[in-house]
Amino acid sequence: VNPIIAIVTDFGIEDTYVGVMKSVILGIQPAARLIDLTHAIPRGSIRAGAFELWRAASYLPKGCILLGVVDPGVGTARRPVTLAFDELLAVGPDNGLFSYLLFEHRLLGAHELAAPELRLPEPSSTFHGRDVFAPAAAHLARGTSPEAFGPPVPQLLSLPLPVLRPIPGAIEGEILHCDVFGNLVTSIGRLELHGAALALRDWTGRELQAGLDARSCQLVLPDGKSLPLAHTFADVPAGAALAYTGSTGLLEIAVNGGDAAEVLGLNVGDVVRLSEIKG
Amino acid sequence: VNPIIAIVTDFGIEDTYVGVMKSVILGIQPAARLIDLTHAIPRGSIRAGAFELWRAASYLPKGCILLGVVDPGVGTARRPVTLAFDELLAVGPDNGLFSYLLFEHRLLGAHELAAPELRLPEPSSTFHGRDVFAPAAAHLARGTSPEAFGPPVPQLLSLPLPVLRPIPGAIEGEILHCDVFGNLVTSIGRLELHGAALALRDWTGRELQAGLDARSCQLVLPDGKSLPLAHTFADVPAGAALAYTGSTGLLEIAVNGGDAAEVLGLNVGDVVRLSEIKG
Amino acid sequence: VNPIIAIVTDFGIEDTYVGVMKSVILGIQPAARLIDLTHAIPRGSIRAGAFELWRAASYLPKGCILLGVVDPGVGTARRPVTLAFDELLAVGPDNGLFSYLLFEHRLLGAHELAAPELRLPEPSSTFHGRDVFAPAAAHLARGTSPEAFGPPVPQLLSLPLPVLRPIPGAIEGEILHCDVFGNLVTSIGRLELHGAALALRDWTGRELQAGLDARSCQLVLPDGKSLPLAHTFADVPAGAALAYTGSTGLLEIAVNGGDAAEVLGLNVGDVVRLSEIKG
Repeated sequence: VNPIIAIVTDFGIEDTYVGVMKSVILGIQPAARLIDLTHAIPRGSIRAGAFELWRAASYLPKGCILLGVVDPGVGTARRPVTLAFDELLAVGPDNGLFSYLLFEHRLLGAHELAAPELRLPEPSSTFHGRDVFAPAAAHLARGTSPEAFGPPVPQLLSLPLPVLRPIPGAIEGEILHCDVFGNLVTSIGRLELHGAALALRDWTGRELQAGLDARSCQLVLPDGKSLPLAHTFADVPAGAALAYTGSTGLLEIAVNGGDAAEVLGLNVGDVVRLSEIKG
Repeated sequence: VNPIIAIVTDFGIEDTYVGVMKSVILGIQPAARLIDLTHAIPRGSIRAGAFELWRAASYLPKGCILLGVVDPGVGTARRPVTLAFDELLAVGPDNGLFSYLLFEHRLLGAHELAAPELRLPEPSSTFHGRDVFAPAAAHLARGTSPEAFGPPVPQLLSLPLPVLRPIPGAIEGEILHCDVFGNLVTSIGRLELHGAALALRDWTGRELQAGLDARSCQLVLPDGKSLPLAHTFADVPAGAALAYTGSTGLLEIAVNGGDAAEVLGLNVGDVVRLSEIKG
Repeated sequence: VNPIIAIVTDFGIEDTYVGVMKSVILGIQPAARLIDLTHAIPRGSIRAGAFELWRAASYLPKGCILLGVVDPGVGTARRPVTLAFDELLAVGPDNGLFSYLLFEHRLLGAHELAAPELRLPEPSSTFHGRDVFAPAAAHLARGTSPEAFGPPVPQLLSLPLPVLRPIPGAIEGEILHCDVFGNLVTSIGRLELHGAALALRDWTGRELQAGLDARSCQLVLPDGKSLPLAHTFADVPAGAALAYTGSTGLLEIAVNGGDAAEVLGLNVGDVVRLSEIKG
């Protein structure tokens, strides 16, 4: 079976940067299959990259190599690394980009990308995607073991956890992502029903007891407006807003046939509350 | 030979939606070859999707699987289907998206995507592209027969035909598509010359007798402006407008080196007339 | 090993043009591997296309087929050609698009794409990417020899060289490219240190003696502002501008964490000077 390399960058696709990375990969491992996850991470936004890597990882084929390049510190002392998880490998800078992956995938080990023979000769100081990370992914796809790249990295840099906490009568979360349609993904998720009681887990997997009744919950926005919980877009009239469990298990906010970010004036980082309807 | 899956969506490429669909496909059928036809269908525009599917289909390799996801009714009662045509298979929602394909490709049968074992487990209600359609395309690419997915669908939903009709002294059509350059594709096409007399076929293949003399035709815009019929862009001066038979056999409108939609103030849906130059 | 075709166009990815070209390629040579280098060349900008082809070519796998379609004269008398270089093949219009490649790759021969059996039947006059160039690339990928396509082309059309010349006390160059981040690539490059003396080669490979001291050089912009030479973005404070040797060996201009084109008011074609700091 041909090895698969799935790629996340903030390089855009207007330039040849991504195409050149792919050229380097196929020059080293011609059998590699390449999947573009996204190249539209906001420039230098490690957190947005970490979110997209986390969101995509559950759907990657087993054994896939995840190549992530969101690297505002390129050319500085931050370490290039390869991470071995139980069912996938990752390659990129050690700047927190892979830290959300750790929530759901067990890390078996991390190694620095130090071996000069596993990079392009004379690497530039501004394009490690081409000179360091793409070659590393390609060599992994040829079967080179992670240990061969360099010394183990005992401690990886971590991003702060997404905001998600029980407060009196509610659960407070934040908006993590706005998609191209204006649908907003919150940090509130993994909702589980125990009878009518709503439980959820935080991002480290711990259960949060919120004491909410799932039959009478709503999502409250920063301006006090509240949205009904629904199943899918068409459950509310065209132009109306709703909250619903999105396709990765997180609560999302949308407007049926519209752009929720624009209509509701919401941005990444805004705080939202899941709470019972007062009666 | 590796099976080919050609994809049309309105998901854009900023998010990981398309990349995740591809991950799901390669997880099920690692040998599949994937072609992005476009992911820039205007959000929810079934008609624009139907046009692009029709326009691309004649150039697809035989045996190709066409995966179309423009699905504003996701999660509602609209049926997910697979269609078998004589030289290709299609997968997507039964909302009219494939109805223009029927003009040129013979439908052998349609089946509902109902079998739970041919979907991802626990499908979401908002991302059938990932949970229902991508797995179906991948299973077809593994050789699963369309019949295995579910019961036959006797009647598919159809879009209205593009406007194309003879009127006294002219043929009336509409603008179907505006490309990224501002070139406009009309519904007037399949022009055939019988000596100097112009004939054309409507979208169902019936011949329309217009009694026009091909040597003296022009294209008249809604504001009365008329464009010469030319062969290619450079047949008119830089900045001048022309009509020409475009690369799919339909009459198109362009400005040599410019943006016809902007320069001429034209939009999708505008009515244009092919008529003889009055003398 | 499967043949690789790397593609550069000005077609954008909103329409199905590129996807249809890929469909045509895989219909002729199903084993071809396809790399998108970029489809965002400014419409009709042969020079921008030539730059991106030059910039990407050094990183392409050996034996790769480079398919370039920036073709404002489509349908006119300009010749479609295939070029054989020592380690790669190219296909596209003979309009100067491949002329920068000649700086670093040895041309073994050029042939016109004339054989009708190696095109699609009844080629359109506006989409040679689909009807002429994609089939040619696919047939080359099947092993058809360049000679089989048509007569040799003794003289290819060439673009003017990028501006790069020594002037008293400085080297004068121009801005060749602005990337999606606002980083600007100049024509000044291939800097070599001979002790402290700076030498560089022009675009034809000839050495330019500028008599500059590498330890005290700066890059002077059209408005007189001067930028320090640095190693990577983070060598200057956030928001500050720098010049540095970019990832293709050319001097580039950036703002750490910002958009240099916008902040500094620079455009493609602007003249810049590398000169010694007066002091």
